Formats: sequence, structure tokens, C-alpha cells
Amino acid sequence: MNYRLILRQLGLLVLVLSGLLLLIWGWAAIEFELIEDKPHSTHLPILLSAAFGAVIAGLFLIVGKKPKNEQGTGSMGRREALLLVSSSWFVGAIVSAAPFLLWARMAAEKDHPFQSVINCFFEAMSGLTTTGATILTDIATLPEPLLLWRSLIQWLGGLGIVVLFVAVLPSLGVGAKKLFRVEAPGPDPEGVRPHIRETARILWMIYVGMTIIEIVTYRIAGMNWFDATCHSFTTLATGGFSTQNASLGHYNSRWIDIITIVFMVLAGANFGLYYAAIRGRLRVIWSDTEFRFYMFLLTAGSAIVVFSLLGSGQALTSTTGSTESSSIGNTITQGVFTAVSIQTNTGFTIADYDTWPFTAKAVIVMMMFIGGCAGSTAGGIKVIRIWIALKVMFGELERAFRPSVVRPLKVGKAAIDPELKLATISYVLGVVVLFTAGAGALMILESGNPECDFTTAATASIATICTVGPGLAKVGATQNYEWFSDASKLLLCMLMAIGRLEVFAVLVLLTPRFWRSA
Amino acid sequence: MNYRLILRQLGLLVLVLSGLLLLIWGWAAIEFELIEDKPHSTHLPILLSAAFGAVIAGLFLIVGKKPKNEQGTGSMGRREALLLVSSSWFVGAIVSAAPFLLWARMAAEKDHPFQSVINCFFEAMSGLTTTGATILTDIATLPEPLLLWRSLIQWLGGLGIVVLFVAVLPSLGVGAKKLFRVEAPGPDPEGVRPHIRETARILWMIYVGMTIIEIVTYRIAGMNWFDATCHSFTTLATGGFSTQNASLGHYNSRWIDIITIVFMVLAGANFGLYYAAIRGRLRVIWSDTEFRFYMFLLTAGSAIVVFSLLGSGQALTSTTGSTESSSIGNTITQGVFTAVSIQTNTGFTIADYDTWPFTAKAVIVMMMFIGGCAGSTAGGIKVIRIWIALKVMFGELERAFRPSVVRPLKVGKAAIDPELKLATISYVLGVVVLFTAGAGALMILESGNPECDFTTAATASIATICTVGPGLAKVGATQNYEWFSDASKLLLCMLMAIGRLEVFAVLVLLTPRFWRSA
Repeated sequence: MNYRLILRQLGLLVLVLSGLLLLIWGWAAIEFELIEDKPHSTHLPILLSAAFGAVIAGLFLIVGKKPKNEQGTGSMGRREALLLVSSSWFVGAIVSAAPFLLWARMAAEKDHPFQSVINCFFEAMSGLTTTGATILTDIATLPEPLLLWRSLIQWLGGLGIVVLFVAVLPSLGVGAKKLFRVEAPGPDPEGVRPHIRETARILWMIYVGMTIIEIVTYRIAGMNWFDATCHSFTTLATGGFSTQNASLGHYNSRWIDIITIVFMVLAGANFGLYYAAIRGRLRVIWSDTEFRFYMFLLTAGSAIVVFSLLGSGQALTSTTGSTESSSIGNTITQGVFTAVSIQTNTGFTIADYDTWPFTAKAVIVMMMFIGGCAGSTAGGIKVIRIWIALKVMFGELERAFRPSVVRPLKVGKAAIDPELKLATISYVLGVVVLFTAGAGALMILESGNPECDFTTAATASIATICTVGPGLAKVGATQNYEWFSDASKLLLCMLMAIGRLEVFAVLVLLTPRFWRSA
Repeated sequence: MNYRLILRQLGLLVLVLSGLLLLIWGWAAIEFELIEDKPHSTHLPILLSAAFGAVIAGLFLIVGKKPKNEQGTGSMGRREALLLVSSSWFVGAIVSAAPFLLWARMAAEKDHPFQSVINCFFEAMSGLTTTGATILTDIATLPEPLLLWRSLIQWLGGLGIVVLFVAVLPSLGVGAKKLFRVEAPGPDPEGVRPHIRETARILWMIYVGMTIIEIVTYRIAGMNWFDATCHSFTTLATGGFSTQNASLGHYNSRWIDIITIVFMVLAGANFGLYYAAIRGRLRVIWSDTEFRFYMFLLTAGSAIVVFSLLGSGQALTSTTGSTESSSIGNTITQGVFTAVSIQTNTGFTIADYDTWPFTAKAVIVMMMFIGGCAGSTAGGIKVIRIWIALKVMFGELERAFRPSVVRPLKVGKAAIDPELKLATISYVLGVVVLFTAGAGALMILESGNPECDFTTAATASIATICTVGPGLAKVGATQNYEWFSDASKLLLCMLMAIGRLEVFAVLVLLTPRFWRSA
């Protein structure tokens, strides 16, 4: 294992984080100290955090080794890549947590949740993994630079995932390569360009471009620039951190809800498709099997939720706590928003869906498992895997009475080989096992806590594995994760990282064989 | 589709049921009317049921067609076999329900649960599928001939499953053939004998032999002949119907508990192994991968349950409702008995495990899913499938960092081909999907009923799919299924049949393609 190469890459990552902290410090200094002329409590904490990051980055870069060729991946093997990916999120979370902790220790009241190291780490991990689970009850009173940082790390985490899964890993031949190669490139024989930097650059431009468009759209719909920026960061990342206690329910604006729905749907689709579209093949998007199934699932899920709500005829509760009319317009907005937010694993809320009928809640939990498309910022099992798994299961059903019939399973024009079938079904089963283990472990860790019923533990498990954020009951739309014990919080951080990095990337690190075969 | 052939086979099945009803009538007539000289309320109902069965059998046999060759399966294809298997259990349940219904209508009080047709069908289906879920609150007051019939149909259902999965289906080349062929025959090149009748005859003798041994052992331990017979019938079938309201907790005898544990373990193992052992290869049992993993799982599960109970130090509650000392002896007996009863999907109870700590309950629910060995009377996913699934999942984990390493997956000496791997993982996932759908459907059907919480619905779903019987909460060890609505009961009957017949056998009947390809 080439540890020095990994350290160097980690050093670069931490350097980027430090640089961004400096930028935020600069903005806060200009905005608050110079223009508004009021001293700001985040001044020193953010500067110190940037320095802390710079020291770590420096150490890593000194010990680390420059790779041999200019692509930066020349001597990086599969095992190095897997270890780098996992450690990036852990090291990143530690550095990202620093501003929260330092601010709490230097400026916040004594009982602020950020006084706890674990809480800060949880919030940072929840950010970088684009989960959006928070330990904060009172989000809106957090100083603006910290709110911005909180949204920014989600945005970075989302960008990291897209670049990783669409540009880096396929080029290294690691992991879900085949899934992403299957269809996105369409009839083009060259495929998604093998040159990592070029692909990454274009993905990054698409991501930034979409963010800017969303910021402007939000501003036009009436949000202020700051909120528009923060929410655009966390929409594109399908993260779900908000600057408001009531999430997007705070604005009580149908236009803002609709804008958010559109951008959540866009963020949950394969960014490889946008890459292909930019290169001149817009039709690729509509002819993509996964995208079409994704739209079908979103529509079907939303429809069931809406009809379940209309059928029950009950009054709707906003996340602000106010009761709203169950008019058709309101019901459709709240139902579709929630369904889309949950399936894309964003986790924005406008409705307290914990009060909804069982059918609606059951569909919502199902949608958590499904998630978005491969190559998107969304989490979950991924639509393409669900599609393949369903096809395989129906195939097995037919084999029971017609064993000789062989129907090749195709996604678009590409046939799915038996190995990929097995890998896909194993992945789906793996998520189910992980979810069960997570829920069980939470129940055991919280066994002294009567507040933690099984619904809470189960949905906390799946909401972190699938990077959704909110679950049901005590982790529902209007609740938060602060009340969990430290041990549970660390477990949940682990689940977030495992789920975000497609399960196997983290779990392999726990196998002795991974370390043995040097 | 050769419907007449199927009708003929169904006719023979119903004829057997009628004959057995006549036998029970004869026994009751001698035992009660002649020896004890008291008129018995089941006299006419059982005789009428036998006549009802005979009429149906006659109709089926007249319309049905004699198969072409003497083996009785010559012209029976895969699709005919699958349809026959599914319809056997449904037709069988209808005929088996008759004595319950007729007795209730002719002799029982007005509010007896058996006044309901659905209840009688549920009880009969629960019997034939060896589930052991009951709709009776007061079991002990049922007349003895009906108690015997209830146990007998479980015993028949168990025998049917063993013969079906070890002798009939493999010979027809249907379904789980490969799973059973893998190891049981050991180094013998001829395999389990292809001649169905011969194999079935030996299996039947093993089954009868083990039943007789258990009856005698129970009698020696102090049970009366009647109870010993009924409980032996339902132990060997891993069914779990008891003649007592408190199940085996009624006897409060450690010897009876131990005898039951031993025979449940035996009944949960592959009867193909006993077949092989009888033919002179006793070593085959201990060298069988599945049997060893089965014993390991039983031991590990029991140990966790016992330690969880010892750790909590709480008093134990018997199914009779009495509180018992949490002495080590008591705890071990109750823990091991419950773990074995649940994993073999028998469903006998001596302890009200609903009062146990979460860890113990979680392990118990896990054990429901696992079930016994392939080719046993136990239900569940089956130990060999769990074993293969675990191996495949760990294999996938290793492939993440070493894609070029190919480790052939072996069970004993036989390599598992990729097709079987895919079929196995799909099966496991299929059970999970079915369980989820069942739990969700129950919650929706019982949405007006505050008694039906999610734990109840979920464990009712898995306890029927895996033919366990009791679940947790409102379907727990001291509860029953009577309170469910009729729609829920029919759904549960469906789940029992689907689970018992290895999912695909029933589900294929719901696919249009099955019927189209005539």
C-alpha cells in the first residue's frame, strides 16, 4: 500500500478546505466588520480553523509523495484509491468540524450543541456526505459564516461524489465503473473521456453552472442572496441543510417549493447525462433507461403520497408547526415536494409528514431506499440497481417454469452480464443487511432511552445510510439527531460514510485481506 | 396445461384426507361412544366432512385423467407440477377446514371462532403449511377428535413438503433441485434415487419412525398418549400446534422441553441426510456443510438469547402467565427452547418472549428469517441459502479491491455455479421484499385498528411467510390471530402458502406468461 501517495492527496484536499475557510473569513470580514461595522463572533474561530487545516495539509504534503506522472493517478492502484476515498471523507469531516467547535468554545453559550466534539463531527460528516441530518435545534441563530460553511461543505461533498463516481473511479477501473459506462455515453465509441482532469473539469462547470442558475432563480422568487446561495448549494448536493429551523417550510412560498422540486430532480439524475448532453447529444437524456425509470418512480411515488393524503382528508401540518388547509393545491405541493425530496435523498422539508397516514409514510420510506440515479449527488441504492434487481427477480420467476428460456437483460443497448447481475443483487441485499444491522445496533445502544422506538431507530438507520437526513418519529421532519448518545452518533456517522461511498468502499477496509495483500 | 392430470392428483389427495377423517371418526367412536359411553359432539361433523371430501375427490377423479405411465408423473411437466403443488395446499385447506366449520355450526356456542368460514380456512391453512398460527384463544376446550385432526393435518403438511422437495420436485427437475442434490448424496454417483416412489416410501418411513419414537419418549416423560401423539405430529412437522392454551409451557417439565428441543432440531435438518444415513453413510450427516452451519446458527442464536436474558437479570414469564425464577437452568431452558423453536419455525412456546430484552427479540426475529435446512419440514429462507448468500456477499466485497481473483464457491465438494448464486441471492431478496410487502399490506388493511402496530404487522408477516406461527406484540407467544380482519386473514393465508412453497412456486401463478405458454 502506497501510504505516502494517499497522504499527499489528503493534504491537497485539506488545503482546499483551508482555502475555502479563508474565503469565508474574507467575505465575513468585508460584509460584517467593514460594511456593517460590527465585530463578528466567527472572526477568530474561522481563521484558526483555516490555520489548523493549513498545518495538517502541510504535514500531509511534506510526508506525502508526488505521484510519478502528471495525471496524479499513475501509481495509484485499486486499494490505494479505495483507502483514499474513505479517508478523504473522514479527514475532511474532522477539518470541517473545526469552525463549529472553535466558535462554540470561544463565543457560544455554554449549552450550545456545538460544545460537543462529537456533535461538530456529526454535523460535518452529515454535510460532507450530503446527508443533511443535523444535531441543531435552533439553526437560524447560528452566525451566517457558519451557516454558509455548513452549506458549502455539502456542496463540496456533492461535487466530490459526482467527480469521484463519474470521472475518477471509472477511469481507475474501480467499483461501479460498469454501471456508469453502461449507457451514458450513448453510441459514442470513445465513452466518457478517459482523461480524468478533462471530465472532472466539465462536471465541475456543469455543477457550478446549475448552482448559479438556481441561486438567481431563488432570488427572483423572493429569497435573499444569502439564503438563495446556501439553499442552492445544498439542493445541488441533494444535501438538505437549510438556514432555517423549519427548512424550506419557512418561506411558505409555492414558487420556492416548485423551484426546489425542479432542481432536486435535476440533482438526482446522472451528471454523466448532462456531460453527454453538453457534448451535443441532448436526446441521450430522454433515451436513458435509468432516467426514464427515475422519472417514473418519482411520479408514481408522488402520486401515491398525494392520493393517500387526499384520501385521508386530514389537515396538513407545515414544518413551522402551523396547520394548513388540505386544499388540492397544498396537498399536491406538499406531497410532491416531500416525495421528491426524500427519493433524491435531499431531505428538505416543508411538511411534517410524520402526521401523514401510514401508506404515505410507507411509500416515503421505500423511496429512501431507492434514491437517485447513479452518477448523481443523491444516495440510496440507486435507480439503475433497482431496475436491474427487478428485472433479475422477474427473470428468476420465469425460470421456475421455463428454465431453458434465456432472455438477455439489457440496459439500453448494452447487455448486463451475469457478474454485474450478481453484484447488483448483492448490493441491494447488502444495503438491506446494513440497514437492519444499523437499526438493531441503534436499538441496543439506546436501550436505556424510551424515546428511541423502533420506527425512530429504523428510519435513522436508513436516513443516514441513504444520505436522506430526516426520518420518522423522533428523527422526523421537525426533529433532530442531538438527543442520541455519543456512541449512537458515531455509529450514524459511520453509516453515513458507508452509504455515501457505496457500501463496499468503506466495508473493504474492515476486511483483514484488504490490508494483508500488500 | 394438462388440467385433467392435475385434477386427478388433487382427487387422490382429497381422498387421502377423507380417509383420515374416517379413521379419526372411527377412533372417536370407539374411544368415546363405545368405551366411555358418552355421545360426542364431533361424531356427525367429522363423518359429514369425510363425505364432503369423498364427493369432491370423486368429482376430481372422474373429470381427471389417468397419467400415461405407472410412475404417475410421466406426462407432468414443470408448469403442471407447479400448479399442482400450489392448488394442493389450497384445495387441501378447504377440505381440512370442513370439520372445524361443521362442528362449530352443529355443536359449538354461538361466538366460537370456528363459526367463521375464514377462521376455519385460516386454521386449516396454518396447519397444512406447518405454520402453527392459530385463531383460537381457548384451544384446550376443543373436542379431542378436532385437536387430533388439527395436529394430523400439520403432520401431513410436513410429510408433504419433505416428499415434495426431496423426492418429487428434484425428480421432475423443478425448483430447488440443485440445492438438494448438492451434497446429501455424498460421494455416491447415483444421487438420491431417481425413482420417486421408492424415495418417497423411505422418507415416509423415516418420518413415521421418528414420530413413533417421539410419542414414546413423550409418554415416558409423563405426557398422556393423546397429547404425546398430537405434539409429536406437530414437532416433526415443525408446525407448532399444541393441544394446550399455554403450548408446551403447560407441562412445566424440563424433560418434555428437552425432548422437544431434540426433535425440533432433528425435524429442521434435511431429511435427505437421514435417507443417506439409512443407506449406510452416517458420516454424511456430520460432513454436510448445511447441517454444520445449521447447528452453528442454532448454538450461536441460543447463546445470544441466553446471555441477553442473563444480562438483563429480569424474571421470566411462562406462557401460562406465571412468573418464574431467572435461575441459570430456567434461563437456559427457556432461551434455548425458544431459539430452537423459532429457527426451526416450529413455534412451540414455553416462555412469553415478548417480555424479553430487545437483543433477544431481535435475534429471534432474525432466526425466523433463517429457518431450517433445505429438505426439512422447517420454513424460512433455509440455512444453505443463507450460507451461499453470505459467501457471495463476502466474495463481492473482495472483488472491490481484487477483481481478478476468482474463488470458486463450493458447498462440500460441489462448486456453486453463477446461476445458482444469482437464484439464491434473488430468493433471499425475494423473501425480504415479500416480508415488506406483507407487513405494509397488513398495516394498510388494519389501518383502522390501533391494536395493530408495526411490530405486530411486521412479525405477523414474517411469522407466516416463514411458517413460524407466533410473532411479537399482538401476535406474540401468548396471543393469537383471531382479531385480524377477514381480509388480513386471507392475506396471511396467502403468505403462508407462498412461504411454504418456496415463494416462486406460488408467485409464478400470478404471472400472465405462466398461463399463456400453453
